[in-house]
Amino acid sequence: MTNCQIGLVGAGTIGGGVVKILNKQKEFFATSLGLPLELKRIVDINADHFDKLPIGNTICSANADDILNDDDISIVIELIGGTTFAKELVINACNAGKHVVTANKALISEHGPEIFETAEKNGVSLFFEASVGGGMPAIKTIRESMIANEIISVETIINGTCNYILSQMTEKGLSFDSVLKTAQENGYAEADPALDIEGGDSGHKVSIMASLLYGGYVPYEKVHIEGITAITGDDIKFARKLGYTIKLLGIIKKLKDNYIDIRIHPAMLHNSHILASVSDVYNAVYIKGDAVGDILLYGRGAGEMPTASAVVSDVVDIARNIATDHRKRISMDYYRSSNELKVASISLITSRYYLCFSVSDEPMVFASIASVLGEHSISIASVIQNEEHSDDSVPIVILTHEAVEENLQDAVKEIERQSFIKAKTRIIRIEE
Amino acid sequence: MTNCQIGLVGAGTIGGGVVKILNKQKEFFATSLGLPLELKRIVDINADHFDKLPIGNTICSANADDILNDDDISIVIELIGGTTFAKELVINACNAGKHVVTANKALISEHGPEIFETAEKNGVSLFFEASVGGGMPAIKTIRESMIANEIISVETIINGTCNYILSQMTEKGLSFDSVLKTAQENGYAEADPALDIEGGDSGHKVSIMASLLYGGYVPYEKVHIEGITAITGDDIKFARKLGYTIKLLGIIKKLKDNYIDIRIHPAMLHNSHILASVSDVYNAVYIKGDAVGDILLYGRGAGEMPTASAVVSDVVDIARNIATDHRKRISMDYYRSSNELKVASISLITSRYYLCFSVSDEPMVFASIASVLGEHSISIASVIQNEEHSDDSVPIVILTHEAVEENLQDAVKEIERQSFIKAKTRIIRIEE
Repeated sequence: MTNCQIGLVGAGTIGGGVVKILNKQKEFFATSLGLPLELKRIVDINADHFDKLPIGNTICSANADDILNDDDISIVIELIGGTTFAKELVINACNAGKHVVTANKALISEHGPEIFETAEKNGVSLFFEASVGGGMPAIKTIRESMIANEIISVETIINGTCNYILSQMTEKGLSFDSVLKTAQENGYAEADPALDIEGGDSGHKVSIMASLLYGGYVPYEKVHIEGITAITGDDIKFARKLGYTIKLLGIIKKLKDNYIDIRIHPAMLHNSHILASVSDVYNAVYIKGDAVGDILLYGRGAGEMPTASAVVSDVVDIARNIATDHRKRISMDYYRSSNELKVASISLITSRYYLCFSVSDEPMVFASIASVLGEHSISIASVIQNEEHSDDSVPIVILTHEAVEENLQDAVKEIERQSFIKAKTRIIRIEE
Repeated sequence: MTNCQIGLVGAGTIGGGVVKILNKQKEFFATSLGLPLELKRIVDINADHFDKLPIGNTICSANADDILNDDDISIVIELIGGTTFAKELVINACNAGKHVVTANKALISEHGPEIFETAEKNGVSLFFEASVGGGMPAIKTIRESMIANEIISVETIINGTCNYILSQMTEKGLSFDSVLKTAQENGYAEADPALDIEGGDSGHKVSIMASLLYGGYVPYEKVHIEGITAITGDDIKFARKLGYTIKLLGIIKKLKDNYIDIRIHPAMLHNSHILASVSDVYNAVYIKGDAVGDILLYGRGAGEMPTASAVVSDVVDIARNIATDHRKRISMDYYRSSNELKVASISLITSRYYLCFSVSDEPMVFASIASVLGEHSISIASVIQNEEHSDDSVPIVILTHEAVEENLQDAVKEIERQSFIKAKTRIIRIEE
């Protein structure tokens, strides 16, 4: 084939990794695969980015139009992030008849229907493997390898920053704040960590997965999201004592009548759960299909080279299509805007719960709590009440049997009206 | 698109699973994916197989020519196994211009170059995801998702029968023979278990993976293969005492000068190794790439529905190509017969070793063994010598530091010439 020419917009961390891989593997792609890939142009508003990279003959500039107006370029890689200029760029690239590869989870999650329709209309591919799970092949496994399956459920640890923080809190007994500070110093957390620790990044990723899994579109804002900022060292200590590990978990389940259950929140996993041993910056996706049974994908979900590896795998997929005169293969498939999936309210789910009440040390407190729980059809599985306590409040930890979320929240609200309650009750769902 | 018509040869366990999935997902493939798949013909010499299946309007017969001669059929699924008639069928199907999907690892491993050349010549696809790891997407991950990587190493537990047997021996302290018998009764082992327990099945699978990973062909007979039949309850007991688990491990590593190290043998894995906790019938592939870092795939590597899930994913991939007038996408790629990879002799590898000598209880025995090991540049990391023993022989267990295989084998041969040796020495390689 003639050269397949590529334009890259965004030469930051991931973009730099892409440049390095395209340079290192150039000979392999050209001779072994028969796919000569040429990085013709790189655009970045920060010219410093070009200096550290093996640029060769690539033309560097600061204006994305240089790529859009270059008729030789058939594949545009978008790695600038954000949803304003990135969206405009992706739509313009599609309208210019160019295939697009992106790692932008916010863009796909929040504007999927519009950009996929634009790609479809122009007969170009829009690939986004790197948007979920970095180098782990989550998207390809869902949309190609498991296509013969009805997906029963997905459980996933999909944010490396949160998993690192919780792992360090668990292993070293450190507080949330001190681990976050170290993570920022080591580059495992952003200077502004909100998108990670408040769960938004995970929410984007599960909304993309659910949209692919269930033949429709799950808007980001329909995902129930709780981050890890409220998790205390005490919660982790109690969890360990009970044989559990606390993880920020993404959950997708198909319910009846085309409703889906989709949420991100801290969850207590029994130590025998396969995801309980996924530690540090590692990610994992645990998928149950009706035919294949359970499959686990595990790997580094972020970082320069893992993410760049996924970007380049999409570029090669498109180049293979171009090489065989096959302009477009798989774009919207079943990511259809017309079919917005119905998301079940979190109040209707059932789960087991960890409750940590902070109470004053006086008679009848436990009896009072137990009685309110009982009135709301919540039965108690186990209790930890320690004598040790530092101030005038005592923690009472209760693990419940399966209960309805709404009943649980009502019961806790009622208990919190009592004068013996000294601080906000901590609630963590338990996944078996 | 018009219907994509399929012919299935072999309606046994896996074939039955394929019929069930094509029936159950027919509506989903047709409406959500826009790929109407029709199972037009099934061929099996055993007509009883048809009775239990949701056949519908499918035409059943006993002669594979009925499929080869049917011009409507564009995809042939080969699920008869073996390498004689299956090879003839696959070659004839390619020559008739039909795409082929197969789960036949022996066929791909032993005759890969010939059948891929035939497919290439005829411009048809030949897909084989189900040949390695059942429902785990091992092939697609290697050839598509990790294409941007140089693969540093693969470690894999790829035979469910062996993993089940070793897991049961470990967890329940049972003997090899008694676990094999139970496994046969439960359908986890064949009536003739040789291909599984002697490592041949695993050998086929790693030869396929290595051929895809390193741009060449690794013939099955070049793979160093040791099965699990020599593993004793004592070995497992000693391994546990030392913090290790014994697994049948497949190893592929790229060495210098285009040599590769490829082998199947029992290995002691430290309990902290990610593969040490893969138990029962589960399989796993642990791949290290230069960009993506380490990735683990985990799932059911065999069985009716997991394997059928992989077969149907290949059928859908081909149907997607046909739907977009793209007859062939990816067949030989870098599985090239002209490029036979050089396999390093097992005698040149380095490893740590577990040695279990069976000796008579007399003075100077340990000193004599240690001195021979030392003369062959093998240093000792730890020793277990128990007082307890049932007959006139005593086990001496030694873990070595890193040593060259050839030196190790020479040393053991020399030690075995001594009169104090009472039985054959057991040697298991240790993977860190």
